[in-house]
Amino acid sequence: MTSTDLFFDFICPYAWRGLELVNALRAEGETFRLRHFSLVQGNHADNAGQPEPRWWLTDQPPGEGTVSQQSSLAAFLAAGAAARQGEEAAWAFSLALLRIRHEDGQPLDEAALTQAAQTAGLDSGRWAADRADETGLREGLRTDLSEAHRLGVFGTPTFVLPDGHAAYYRFDHLTRDPQVARERWQLYRDVLQSEAGIGTIKRTRRMTR
Amino acid sequence: MTSTDLFFDFICPYAWRGLELVNALRAEGETFRLRHFSLVQGNHADNAGQPEPRWWLTDQPPGEGTVSQQSSLAAFLAAGAAARQGEEAAWAFSLALLRIRHEDGQPLDEAALTQAAQTAGLDSGRWAADRADETGLREGLRTDLSEAHRLGVFGTPTFVLPDGHAAYYRFDHLTRDPQVARERWQLYRDVLQSEAGIGTIKRTRRMTR
Repeated sequence: MTSTDLFFDFICPYAWRGLELVNALRAEGETFRLRHFSLVQGNHADNAGQPEPRWWLTDQPPGEGTVSQQSSLAAFLAAGAAARQGEEAAWAFSLALLRIRHEDGQPLDEAALTQAAQTAGLDSGRWAADRADETGLREGLRTDLSEAHRLGVFGTPTFVLPDGHAAYYRFDHLTRDPQVARERWQLYRDVLQSEAGIGTIKRTRRMTR
Repeated sequence: MTSTDLFFDFICPYAWRGLELVNALRAEGETFRLRHFSLVQGNHADNAGQPEPRWWLTDQPPGEGTVSQQSSLAAFLAAGAAARQGEEAAWAFSLALLRIRHEDGQPLDEAALTQAAQTAGLDSGRWAADRADETGLREGLRTDLSEAHRLGVFGTPTFVLPDGHAAYYRFDHLTRDPQVARERWQLYRDVLQSEAGIGTIKRTRRMTR
């Protein structure tokens, strides 16, 4: 593995900040791979304490479940359809959708998906056709969710470095500045690669700065 | 506040490493204050989701409760008695007891407390007399537990910097080298003081390096 995997969920505002962070680094030649992790699956009561998930987002019938379940599943599948137009299309769609949801504060609904596809410059006819392959898209999502479970991902954004270090990285303040992004990314890597074997740094409560 | 508060529990092996870390820094003139946080209280089922603790370690009758409850309470009170012989006595006793428990693997029992007092060079007669002031020692412990609750402490070691930043810091590898300790301490402070507003860096699973 030569690229860093980024596990994220469209419903998560910290995942949005994480995607913006590494998007700023992509311009400098660092490579990241977009992967999906489902918070509603990870936090589902049926999965608490289970060695393997009993409740899978990918097994939920269309149109059933909570708003979060339905909207996160629809977003993942729509992003999967976008990815069939290439990696850059996947990035453009994912960033657009996260900004609509978390920067503009719009709901994660069908209108948001359509708007993200337009902003990303997708071939709309092809995107619509690919979205109809629900079975194939669910299989692709299942692969990511299984891998995330295997790695022990519990929140987003979680990055898996090429050397195998993997951790959740939550921060409050957005940046799109490559230099600032570089500093934040280096600090995160310094923590994971420290000889201390750091497992956790977690605030007792949120700072209001 | 000009010193850093260190909240710890004698039953926690990560707290031991945290105390060793900052003990190595004390030689360089940095000041830390020892504070107590109870993991058995923090994790008690009666306190889950409560705005204020309903179960207090300091309200437990002597000789009642689980082994962890009894041994952690006895250790806190014994450390409180040691602290009446001065701050250096408190450090010496606390380090000695943590090493007996987590380095030597001995149980946290009365023999361990006595051995720690000897290793720390306490005035044993005075220590025994101070231990008899159970009410006063419990009041002192209660002050720390209340402050820890107010700060939202959830695990140990948790450090509260003079500027108010506060976070749990868990790492696997012990150091008593002041230079290494300095690097690890600076990394922790860099994370807390980053303009990113970092809330959490947490591994998905423990690395075996």
